[in-house]
Order: sequence, then C-alpha cells, then structure tokens
Amino acid sequence: MEARVKPKTLPGFMELLPSEQILFNEMKEKIQKSYEKYGFLPINTPIIESADVLLAKAGGETEKQIYKFKKGENDLALRFDLTVPLAKYVTQYYDKLQFPFKRYQIGKVYRGEKAQRGRYREFYQCDVDIIGDGELSIINDAEIPSIIYNTFRELGFDDFCICINNRKILNGLFLSLGLEKESADILRVIDKIDKIGEEKVQKELESKIESNKVAVIMKFIKICGTNVEKIKQLEELNISEDMFVQGLNELREILKYITVFGVPEENIKVDLTIARGLDYYTGTVYETFLNKYRNLGSVCSGGRYENLAGYYTDKKMPGVGISIGLSRLFFLLTDYNIISADDKSISDVLVVSMNNEYEKCAEVATKLRQNDMNVQINIENQKLGKKFKNADKLNIKYVIVIGEDEVKNNVVSLKNMATGSQETVDIDKAISIIKNK
Amino acid sequence: MEARVKPKTLPGFMELLPSEQILFNEMKEKIQKSYEKYGFLPINTPIIESADVLLAKAGGETEKQIYKFKKGENDLALRFDLTVPLAKYVTQYYDKLQFPFKRYQIGKVYRGEKAQRGRYREFYQCDVDIIGDGELSIINDAEIPSIIYNTFRELGFDDFCICINNRKILNGLFLSLGLEKESADILRVIDKIDKIGEEKVQKELESKIESNKVAVIMKFIKICGTNVEKIKQLEELNISEDMFVQGLNELREILKYITVFGVPEENIKVDLTIARGLDYYTGTVYETFLNKYRNLGSVCSGGRYENLAGYYTDKKMPGVGISIGLSRLFFLLTDYNIISADDKSISDVLVVSMNNEYEKCAEVATKLRQNDMNVQINIENQKLGKKFKNADKLNIKYVIVIGEDEVKNNVVSLKNMATGSQETVDIDKAISIIKNK
Repeated sequence: MEARVKPKTLPGFMELLPSEQILFNEMKEKIQKSYEKYGFLPINTPIIESADVLLAKAGGETEKQIYKFKKGENDLALRFDLTVPLAKYVTQYYDKLQFPFKRYQIGKVYRGEKAQRGRYREFYQCDVDIIGDGELSIINDAEIPSIIYNTFRELGFDDFCICINNRKILNGLFLSLGLEKESADILRVIDKIDKIGEEKVQKELESKIESNKVAVIMKFIKICGTNVEKIKQLEELNISEDMFVQGLNELREILKYITVFGVPEENIKVDLTIARGLDYYTGTVYETFLNKYRNLGSVCSGGRYENLAGYYTDKKMPGVGISIGLSRLFFLLTDYNIISADDKSISDVLVVSMNNEYEKCAEVATKLRQNDMNVQINIENQKLGKKFKNADKLNIKYVIVIGEDEVKNNVVSLKNMATGSQETVDIDKAISIIKNK
Repeated sequence: MEARVKPKTLPGFMELLPSEQILFNEMKEKIQKSYEKYGFLPINTPIIESADVLLAKAGGETEKQIYKFKKGENDLALRFDLTVPLAKYVTQYYDKLQFPFKRYQIGKVYRGEKAQRGRYREFYQCDVDIIGDGELSIINDAEIPSIIYNTFRELGFDDFCICINNRKILNGLFLSLGLEKESADILRVIDKIDKIGEEKVQKELESKIESNKVAVIMKFIKICGTNVEKIKQLEELNISEDMFVQGLNELREILKYITVFGVPEENIKVDLTIARGLDYYTGTVYETFLNKYRNLGSVCSGGRYENLAGYYTDKKMPGVGISIGLSRLFFLLTDYNIISADDKSISDVLVVSMNNEYEKCAEVATKLRQNDMNVQINIENQKLGKKFKNADKLNIKYVIVIGEDEVKNNVVSLKNMATGSQETVDIDKAISIIKNK
C-alpha cells in the first residue's frame, strides 16, 4: 500500500458542505443583485498583487497579517481588503472610467489573523464604493443607507438598524475644546462605550483630560431621543467651530435624503458614539446592527473618506462606501440558527431507475431540463431505497421513478418527498405538478 | 509631495474594465446555471491549502509552476486546479456526501507559467465532476456531452463540435500490437496530428517502431466518416483484445445515450485522435471545438478517470468530468471579436438633475428601483452634456432628466440614448416605456 497524505483544510479557512454552500451562494447573489440595482459596476481585481503596490499604505498590525511571498524575483502579496485594489484600479484606469465611479467587488481577501472560531484567514468581502473625481456630492452619503437597507431586506431581514454618524461632528467638538491632538485617544475610549459602559468611559477620560471638558464630552455622548431630537440637541450645544457646523449640516442633509431614498425611519438611527477606523474615514460613518442580535456586532460598515488613492496619485478622489464581511456574517447567522441550510437543494427533481430503465430516465431528465428545471439523474446500480434516501439528504422535493410499467405505459411515477404521496402521471402532468408546487 | 507608488497589475493577471467584467460575469453565470440544471452541487474550497495536501500527487512541470510559500511555520500553496481540492473534499467529507457525488466549482486557480499574451497565472476554471463510490455507471459519460452542449448553447454558440474518444480503444490497440510500453510515446506523437499532419506523425512513429505496426496505427488513425461509420470501421479491425473491445462497447453505449440526452448528431463527433492527459484519464475523453474557430483549440475538455483520490484514501472513487478554462476562453473570444462588451451595462436608467433637483432625482430613482430596475443616479455638480456622455460610455439605454419644469409638473424627461428622442411623461409611463423596450 502506498503512503497516503491525510486530507485536511487549514484552520481559519471556511469550507462548507454543499447545502451550506447553496445558502452561502444565495446570500452572495442577493448582495450582488442589490448592489447592481443601485447601478454599481463589477470589477474583479487579482488576489495576488505586487507587494509594493499592495503595501503602499499598509503598516502596523495589518502588515503583519499579510500573506507575502516571493515567486522568482518578485515580491508578491495577497490582497487583505478590496479598498487598496480599488485605489490601484481607479488610478490605473482613470482615463477609461466615468466619474463618479460606482463599483462593487465581491471576493476573497486574506489576513493571517490568529485562528479562532468564526474568524477567518480567507474571507469574502462585499464592497460598494462611489468615487468622485475631485469632489463628490454629500447626497451620495444618503444613498448608501438605502443600499444597506435594500440589501438586508433582500437577505430576509427587517428588524435592523443602520447607525449613522459624522466624524466632523466629533472632530469639531474636540477642536472647540482644544483637544484635537487628544482626539484619536478620546475616540478610542468612546468607541468602547458599548463594551464597558458610560461610567467607565467617563472615568477613563477624566484620567486624561480636564473634567470640565469631559463634562461637555459626556453631555455630547448622552444626547438621545429620535434622530430629529438628536439633531436639535446638537444644535443646542451652540458650538460655532466650522468643522462641527459642517458635520452637523452634512448629517442633517443626509437624514433628509435618506428618507427620500426610501429608508423607513425605524431603520436609521443617528448614533454619535460610533467612530470607526481612526484615520481612514473623514465624514459620514455607518454601522449596521440586527436588533435582535446586537451582540453579533456590526454586519455592514463603512463611511466617507477624503481621498482614496493618495499613495498612488496626486488626483484627489473622495469616496464613500460600505463593506459586508460575508464569511463572518454567514458563520454568525448559521451559528446562531438565524438562518439554516437544512432545506437547500439545487435540483427540483431526482430521476431514478427502478432497474435498468436508463434510456427512459435520460429521456425524462432531458425533457424536464428543457422545461427549465434543475434535474439530477441517478442511473447507478443502487437499491431504490438508497436512491430515495439520497434524494431526502439532498433536500430534493420530488423523485420521478421509472420502472418497467412506466416505460411500457409511457408515464412516470412522481413522488412528493414531503408528503410521501406518489402518483402515476404522464410527463407533461408531472412537469405541471412540480412547477405549480 | 510624498513619494508615490506606481500602480500596476502583475503580468499574467487578468483585470478587466467594468463593461468587459459584466460580459465575463454573464458568461460565468450562464455556465453556473447550466451546471445547476444538471443537478451539480456547488462547493468552494480555499485557494490556499497546506502544501503537502495540495502536492500529494503533483510533480514535474506542474510542481514548478505552483505558488508555494511559508506563513509562520506552515508550508502553504495556492491551488493549481480544482481537481486536487475535489479529491481532498470527497475524502474529507466522505460520510456527509451522497454518491454519486455531483459537484461544480467555479473559481480562480494559480500557475506561475511563463507570461505570454492570453496565458494567465491567475485564471478561472469551471469544473463539473460526477464521483462514484466504488463504481460509476458509464451512462454518466453520456450525460457530460449534454452538459457541454447545453452550456455552449447558453453561451450563445451553436456551431461547435464535442469530440469524444475512449482511451481504452487506443490502449487496447497498443496491447494487441504488443506496444503497451511505448503507448505513452506513441500517444504523444498522435496528439500532434492537428499541428504537424498525418505524414509527419507516420514518419515520427516509424522512427520508433516497426513499420507493419505503424501501418495498423495509421489505418486506425485514418478511420473516418460519420460516427456510425467510425464504429463500424473499428469493429472491422477485428481486434479481440479485451481492453479494445471494452472501450468500443463503452463508446457505442455512450453514443446511444448522448442522443437520448438531447445532443444533436451534428454537435458530437467520434475523434479517435484525441488522447488528452497521458496518465490521468482512463476511459472516455472529451474535447470541444468551435467549428469556425478551430484554431482556438479545445474550449472544454475532460474525461473519465478510474480513481480520483488514491493519494488520500484507499476508497476507490471513479469519476468523469470536464473543465472550461473561462479566463482563456474569454480572452480568445474577445480577442477574435467573437463576443464584445461594447453594449454591456448594469443600469437600465441613469437619473440626472438639470441643476439642483436632487430630491426629485432620489425620489424617481427609488421608485424605479422599487419597480425592479437597476438605476444609477448622478447628482454631481457636472454639466448635463457630461452626464449624457457618461451614460453613453456606460451603455445605459435611457436617461431620465429632472429639471425645474419636471419638478413643477411632477413628470420626467425620458431620453432614449439609441434614438436620441426625448419625451416628457409621468413616472409610471416612463417605467412602462423602459420595461417594454
């Protein structure tokens, strides 16, 4: 006996059984269709890029996680997000693109993170971004929540909340307090409010800055009520700092348009505590939570950035976008039994032979396929019981059995796997029964 | 000014403009839908695998091309085909799969080939395979051409030829001539017949083996006529060697069922000269040619193999399958102007504002989207002419213009970009015009 290698999949790499894969693919296609509904164009950049191109902006924690290697003389790296490839793409093909450039990309990215349950080293990101040439209307920031809303509706959710904030409001607040240098630190603390609570945030802030300034910050954090009420309380802070005013104006404008873009009030919430990625985002930021499963964390996030591709070009390209981390979302939703692959199948019908009625099986399967059905055929030398069991495991709703009598009388036996009932009908009748199910 | 990195894509890596990507994705989806019509289940294995798992069978030329690297302590490699991952998958999840196991996988694979035009280092393969547990009916070999037929019809082709052969016929012939040891050499020579012609093949063979045996081989090679005539001539060779007889029986059986599976006679051709992959395939082999573009080479190939996963398990798993090399096919078809991305768009309509009628634009776009249309909105501070030019470049068929009058009268101006005609209608009328186009 020859030496054999033990087949295994690397830890941190998602690999699904077929029924799970069907469910995963359905979600991926729904996201894609939703992105296309908003006019986003597909691109598909390579997974491997030249290391110097991919790492032009990277550094710190991200860089450590990157898969880098040499092939021949070349330093290569696997993409770790879809934003850097987008920056490369718009710079490289600038003359051939129309701006504002709206693109989606759905694909695998790679990060050598510490392996842990539900964290993947290879995972799907589903991104949309709108990129302006020089400038980009703020109204685009209002279209983004509409995309999130439509996408999660298509995915079957209705009880979710798109949280929106504007970094200029926070930054303007810090400026007005003379705390702009400490802002990154302060934001890091504020960002923990969901985890550690208001009180601990206040204490941690007081260990860093004067308590009268902390008081303003805490007053700001405690702003609450409806979106309209929150805007009103922000106005009442009476901060005249330009950046603050600009952020507030943007937020007010976006809220107005979000409604016009068809997002119901209950699905959108001003949340002044979300900050997201300290350097990257410069204006609007988004996070999305499933209300019943807030502990899952944000399922769709993003924001506005001043300049996409500064490390490649001196052209200023502002943008706004979001990303859905599909692999992790899929893991969480299945792990919490929020979605299930239990009834997923590819085939509408399984056609099986009783004994050796193979020719009739092939003929029937072909006719069903010509009538737009997905059909599997099983003409193996297996017992009929085994074939039915397979249909059951594959979640196929109908089995057509062809035996001697069926061939003789030019009919089929159609079994409904859910009810167990079986009837002998001609092929056209079988087609209409399956189609009208 | 900060130092900038020049954005570039690595040679051998396909990166398309959006309109080309739309066309590419359409082809990919058609292939997927066609595979699903035949009841194949999706799987999606990782691109990165443990090197020892991936290279269990590799060697020689293939191994040199493989992207291998270390991450921490682990030897990793990028998959170079979808067959080895399939072998891993069926062995690993054997207990959870139903046999015959029919799976498709469409994904990128990696080979560090010498860079040349139209040859890619990252490319899509679109595979279907039917895997048996211990045994697999020969009738499955007849379903495969039906899948190829349906797939290429869906891709818009009708003038193509699926060439079929059986390696047992060739091997049986060699056995009967006592040339089994030389068979790999001889097949390599025969395989070149399309490139170098019969005469040179004969000469090359005569330099290796006795001329009376070459005569039999050449007689065999020259078998011609319809499929029925070819079978007849094979029978008339009167070779009693078991393997030959078995191969001939299989080929006869398959031809019978191919017709039942709905493949027209003109699309299927017995071609005794095709051999394919010297070690891997053991029975039926397939190649597919576009008749008008035979010089493109085979656009879909595959065959029957005795044992899928011998390097992982002692379970015998015979299979039959095919692969479409989509990236290369796409390159060839566009390069030869057989297909074109010139009229491809995502959006049905572009909604633009004349001046600052942004709210109405958002309202109209939302209504169109609620009516199942893909809609892009352009509310940028751009001249109207520029917006129309963008619509044209994006191949969008309709532009809706919202100006002061349209807002006042609650109507839209609908411009048909193909005819240039413009009419002012209410939104519902616009929807019906666009939908009934």
